[in-house]
Amino acid sequence: MDYSIGIDIGGTNTVIGLVDEKGNVVAKEKLKTRDFTIVDEYLQAITAKIELLADRVKEENLILGVGIGAPNGNYYHGTIEYAPNLPFNGIIELKEILEVLLLKDGYNLKVTVTNDANAAAIGEMIYGKAKDVKNFIMITLGTGVGSGIVVNGKLVYGHTGFAGEVGHTIIDPDGRQCNCGRKGCVERYASATGIVITIKEMLDNSSDNSVLRNIDRDKITSKDIYDAAVKGDKTALECFDYTAKQLALGIANAAEITSPEKVYLFGGLSKSGDFLLKPLKKYMEEFLFSIFQNTIDIELSGLKEEDAAVLGAAALCY
Amino acid sequence: MDYSIGIDIGGTNTVIGLVDEKGNVVAKEKLKTRDFTIVDEYLQAITAKIELLADRVKEENLILGVGIGAPNGNYYHGTIEYAPNLPFNGIIELKEILEVLLLKDGYNLKVTVTNDANAAAIGEMIYGKAKDVKNFIMITLGTGVGSGIVVNGKLVYGHTGFAGEVGHTIIDPDGRQCNCGRKGCVERYASATGIVITIKEMLDNSSDNSVLRNIDRDKITSKDIYDAAVKGDKTALECFDYTAKQLALGIANAAEITSPEKVYLFGGLSKSGDFLLKPLKKYMEEFLFSIFQNTIDIELSGLKEEDAAVLGAAALCY
Repeated sequence: MDYSIGIDIGGTNTVIGLVDEKGNVVAKEKLKTRDFTIVDEYLQAITAKIELLADRVKEENLILGVGIGAPNGNYYHGTIEYAPNLPFNGIIELKEILEVLLLKDGYNLKVTVTNDANAAAIGEMIYGKAKDVKNFIMITLGTGVGSGIVVNGKLVYGHTGFAGEVGHTIIDPDGRQCNCGRKGCVERYASATGIVITIKEMLDNSSDNSVLRNIDRDKITSKDIYDAAVKGDKTALECFDYTAKQLALGIANAAEITSPEKVYLFGGLSKSGDFLLKPLKKYMEEFLFSIFQNTIDIELSGLKEEDAAVLGAAALCY
Repeated sequence: MDYSIGIDIGGTNTVIGLVDEKGNVVAKEKLKTRDFTIVDEYLQAITAKIELLADRVKEENLILGVGIGAPNGNYYHGTIEYAPNLPFNGIIELKEILEVLLLKDGYNLKVTVTNDANAAAIGEMIYGKAKDVKNFIMITLGTGVGSGIVVNGKLVYGHTGFAGEVGHTIIDPDGRQCNCGRKGCVERYASATGIVITIKEMLDNSSDNSVLRNIDRDKITSKDIYDAAVKGDKTALECFDYTAKQLALGIANAAEITSPEKVYLFGGLSKSGDFLLKPLKKYMEEFLFSIFQNTIDIELSGLKEEDAAVLGAAALCY
C-alpha cells in the first residue's frame, strides 16, 4: 500500500493527514494556524506532524510525498503568496523550507503546493466523481468562492500558476465592494459571506414577516438562511434564488471559456442542496450561449466534506 | 518543402490557400459563399479548388492536409453547426463529405475543422508571435468578437469542442440585446458592430459638435469613428475609451480563468491601434484580481491581416 500526506492550510486550522491509495484518511493531526505568528515556528510544527504520521507506516510502506493546499498557494513556485487570511505576511517558501527541514531529519519527501480549490479539483479527479471526466470546474463555496479548472484531464495553472479564479471574476463592475479592492466579484454574492449580505439587504428593503427577523440582524448566518428556507420562508427562498442567479452568471461565463462537462460544488453553501442547485441550473442555462446549453451538469462534489481538503492535497502527490 | 491547404470560410468569401511550411501563402483561390444555396454544390466547388491547388505541387511535394476555419466549426465533429451567417442551415458534415469527395478524385487528404478564432490562435502559434508562448488568448475583433484560448501550449476545445467564447461571455445581464438571444455579451460592445452602436448612443445623448455628425447617422462605420479619433474628435475618443473598457472586462474575466501570458488582438477593430490598445491595457489592469496584475501583455497579432485566416486554417494540419 502506498500512502501520501495531505495538508490543508486554513486561516483557522491546519490539518495534516495520512492518506492511503484508496483515499482513506487513516490518521490526522491538527494545528491551530493562529497559534503561530512566526512562520519558521509554524513550519517546524508542521514538519514534526508530518514526521509523526510518516513514522506510523515507515516499516511497511512507501510515502509518495507531501501535498499542500493553501490559500494563494502557487504550484510553480511552491509558495504561499500574500494570503490575506493567514497570520503570516508576504511570500512563504513553503516547498523549499519544508523539504530542507524534512531532509535534515532523514525524510526525503517531495512537497507540492497549490491553492485549496485546485487541491479540491485534483481530489475530485483522484478520489471523487471526476475519475473519467476530462473537462470540469470545481467551485468551492466557503467564506469566499474558489475554483479549480480541469481541461483535457489537467489542472489549469496558466502563466502565473494562479489560474482558475471564478470567484474573482466580475459580474457587476458597479456592484458590491469586494475585499480584493474591486467591485462586483462573484465571491461577494455567492459565498457564505455574500448570501448574508443579500439577506440583510432583502430584510432592510422589505417589510415581509420573515422568520429571520427573530434573529439579531448582525448575527444571521448562512445556516440560519438555510433553516428559514426549510421552513418555507419566502425571503430566505428569494435570497437563495438571487444567490444562485449571481453564481450562475459567474459559472456560465467561465464555462464559455473552457466548456466543461461537469461543474462540481463543494463547501458550506453547497450543503443547501436544491435551494441553491435548482435555481442555479435554471439560471446557468439562461446565461449560457446556445451551443453550450444542455451540455453541462452541475452536481455536488463526491468528496466527503470532512476529509476533502486533506484528500485534495494528498492527491497532488499523484 | 511541405505544404498544407488552409480554407477560411466566411459569410461573404471562402478563401482556399496553398501554404508552405514557412507560412507563405503561395497560391490562393476564392469563392463567393453567397453564390451557393445548396451545400453539396458549395462543397463540390471547394473540392475543385483544393484539387487545383494540390496539383500545383503534386510532382515535388507532400501535402499535409486540409485545415478549415469556419464560424461555429467544431473540431471534434468536423462539422459546421448552425452558423448564423452562412447561407446553409443546420449541421454541415464538412470533414466527412470533403474527405470522400477528395478521395473519389484520388486525393487522400485529412480534413481538420475548427472555428475561425481558434484557427487564428493556432496560426499565431505556428506562424506568428506565439511560437514560444504556452498560455495566451487570441481575440478576433470583427463583425463579432471571437476568441481562441491556448493553455499549456494546447488549444482549449473543452467537452463540446466549442470552448473559448469570450465574445459571448456576459458583462452586463441587463445590457444590450445580442443576436444570440441573451443580453450584454462582450460582442455587443467590442465588435465593429458594437462600437457603431456606442457612437450612435453617444451622439443621441449629447449635443457635442462631433465631426461624425456630418455623416448620415445610419451609415457611420467603425472606420469613420477611427478617422474622427485621428482628428482628435472628443466623442470618437470617448467611444474608443468606452469600447476598450467593455472589452477589458471580458478579457480580464477570461484571464482569471486561464491566466495567459499574452493577449493577442486581431481583426478590423484592432487596427485602431493605441486608440483602443492604450485604454484597454489600463482598464484590464483595473479589472484584474491583484495576483494577475502586471502579468499579461496585450499585443497586436503577428499574423498579416490579409493571410491570417488562411494561415490559421493551414496551421491546423500541424
